[in-house]
Amino acid sequence: MSGEYACDLAAVQAAANRLHGVVHRTPVMHSRSFDQRAGRRVLFKCENLQKVGAFKFRGASNAVRLLPEAAARRGVVTHSSGNHAQALALAARQRGIPAYIVMPHTAPLVKRQAVADYGGQITLCEPTLAAREEAAARIAASTGAVLIPPFDHPDVIAGQGTVALEFLEQAPELEALVIPIGGGGLIAGCTIAAQGVRPSMRIFGAEPAGADDAARSKAAGQWLPQLQPQSIADGLLTSTGQLTWPVIRDRVERVFTVGDDEIRAAMRFLWERLKLIVEPSGAVPAAVVLSEAFRALPGLSTVGVVLSGGNVTLDRLYW
Amino acid sequence: MSGEYACDLAAVQAAANRLHGVVHRTPVMHSRSFDQRAGRRVLFKCENLQKVGAFKFRGASNAVRLLPEAAARRGVVTHSSGNHAQALALAARQRGIPAYIVMPHTAPLVKRQAVADYGGQITLCEPTLAAREEAAARIAASTGAVLIPPFDHPDVIAGQGTVALEFLEQAPELEALVIPIGGGGLIAGCTIAAQGVRPSMRIFGAEPAGADDAARSKAAGQWLPQLQPQSIADGLLTSTGQLTWPVIRDRVERVFTVGDDEIRAAMRFLWERLKLIVEPSGAVPAAVVLSEAFRALPGLSTVGVVLSGGNVTLDRLYW
Repeated sequence: MSGEYACDLAAVQAAANRLHGVVHRTPVMHSRSFDQRAGRRVLFKCENLQKVGAFKFRGASNAVRLLPEAAARRGVVTHSSGNHAQALALAARQRGIPAYIVMPHTAPLVKRQAVADYGGQITLCEPTLAAREEAAARIAASTGAVLIPPFDHPDVIAGQGTVALEFLEQAPELEALVIPIGGGGLIAGCTIAAQGVRPSMRIFGAEPAGADDAARSKAAGQWLPQLQPQSIADGLLTSTGQLTWPVIRDRVERVFTVGDDEIRAAMRFLWERLKLIVEPSGAVPAAVVLSEAFRALPGLSTVGVVLSGGNVTLDRLYW
Repeated sequence: MSGEYACDLAAVQAAANRLHGVVHRTPVMHSRSFDQRAGRRVLFKCENLQKVGAFKFRGASNAVRLLPEAAARRGVVTHSSGNHAQALALAARQRGIPAYIVMPHTAPLVKRQAVADYGGQITLCEPTLAAREEAAARIAASTGAVLIPPFDHPDVIAGQGTVALEFLEQAPELEALVIPIGGGGLIAGCTIAAQGVRPSMRIFGAEPAGADDAARSKAAGQWLPQLQPQSIADGLLTSTGQLTWPVIRDRVERVFTVGDDEIRAAMRFLWERLKLIVEPSGAVPAAVVLSEAFRALPGLSTVGVVLSGGNVTLDRLYW
């Protein structure tokens, strides 16, 4: 696939070497009771146990470590209220450079606190995309910091792809991967990595029904934006990007959608039976695997699910 | 220590061989933010990720597998509403023999369902110890089933000790273990195993303030029963036993107690930061390690905590 997409297998393999000892090699788990409900063997790659509680630390670390020294010294900037913000803050701190994080003033205190704990310098702004982009651009201009976007960046995508490289090493029997789609960085990187290693690997996307831009885009045969998304899976509300969409378009076999009730039920099952805290977005592929549509797929005796993150507020339950 | 106590290192090592491939080799986890609060490096042995969600599966499996064929065929019986009931039911099913489980009719439906899911045959009784013992004795008499108690049994203790054998293999740098005390099966087995392998290993007990029989017994220099226990840590309300108390008396350096608020806070920290569902009883040693009294202990740069189980009802939060 070299040349066609934002990155290739070699870039993911280089990222894996670069991130060795930097990111956790997260465990793969299994639950017989989940298998019974899914009608096949399902293995879980626990990126909720990754540093900062999400796979995002892989992509952010890869991007930060690839910056030339002169550029890195001026720092990095992003606008995010989610896991990418924490991931970039920690990755920057590990390199000893500043991280400027633009967050809407509506972001929960717990998320601001987490970014601050990792040493990120927070700038609050109005909760609109325009205000966030403007604030980030202003910081980049005044400090010289490099913008590291949450998904549409070759080094970020290559970093996320290391999830699939590890997963296939840990479980060579996998026949397919089911991966959540927000901006698409995780699925793009994992597809490039997994099909690079094994061209026959089947890749399925997982989206909330209330933020199904990738599913609709696949159906239409062209990129469509996500307008007015609405789902409990707050990490998956974004549209796919210029770099991620082509991989989804060409290499992802099908995108399945699930409703919020299915997401909640899958999430609860993961908490209760696997004893793992998984955030709503991270439970979406598990919900897909339990759905009738997915269960009806023939073949596929062993399927891998990426539990992408575990950052939740524990002030309340989700069901 | 051979001969002095209910079992010895050789029995634990034999149990480990017997249970290889039967029980999960549970992962060891670590959290920098927990270390910061504890003032030292803390490693967590995740028995909440064990089959049936608790270490109890080790002891039950060892006892069931050690039964001679003729005795085994008649089945096993116990009275428990907790993790031992589920553990024994699954261990019996794996050997293809019946498990008769006496439970008080007040046991939550979810616990009855779990035992039934593992194939246990449930007999309900009045919620008193006398009624439970009477029902179990009656079943033993009528079926010939062997009583496998939850902790005061050499093979059960030896099975629980495999937790410490594994933990030391996974983390040879450990200087001490902090282990919850209910009936004392886990701490007795782990002490025999850990000090058998390394005589200098320091062992600390962890109890809820509302069920502090082991701490009081240590202070009095003689076995004292637990009367009217009261704690959120419902797995630790029992008195220690005839076989477990001598090990605690002689080999456990000190028993620390923590209040329910401390247990809740530790539990929440484990859920939020380690992304692990741990039950109140399982969070007690983590709460101890965070307590002022434990933090004040000199030395001890690396301490191991056993997260003993993760079986909770998720209808509500605990804080």
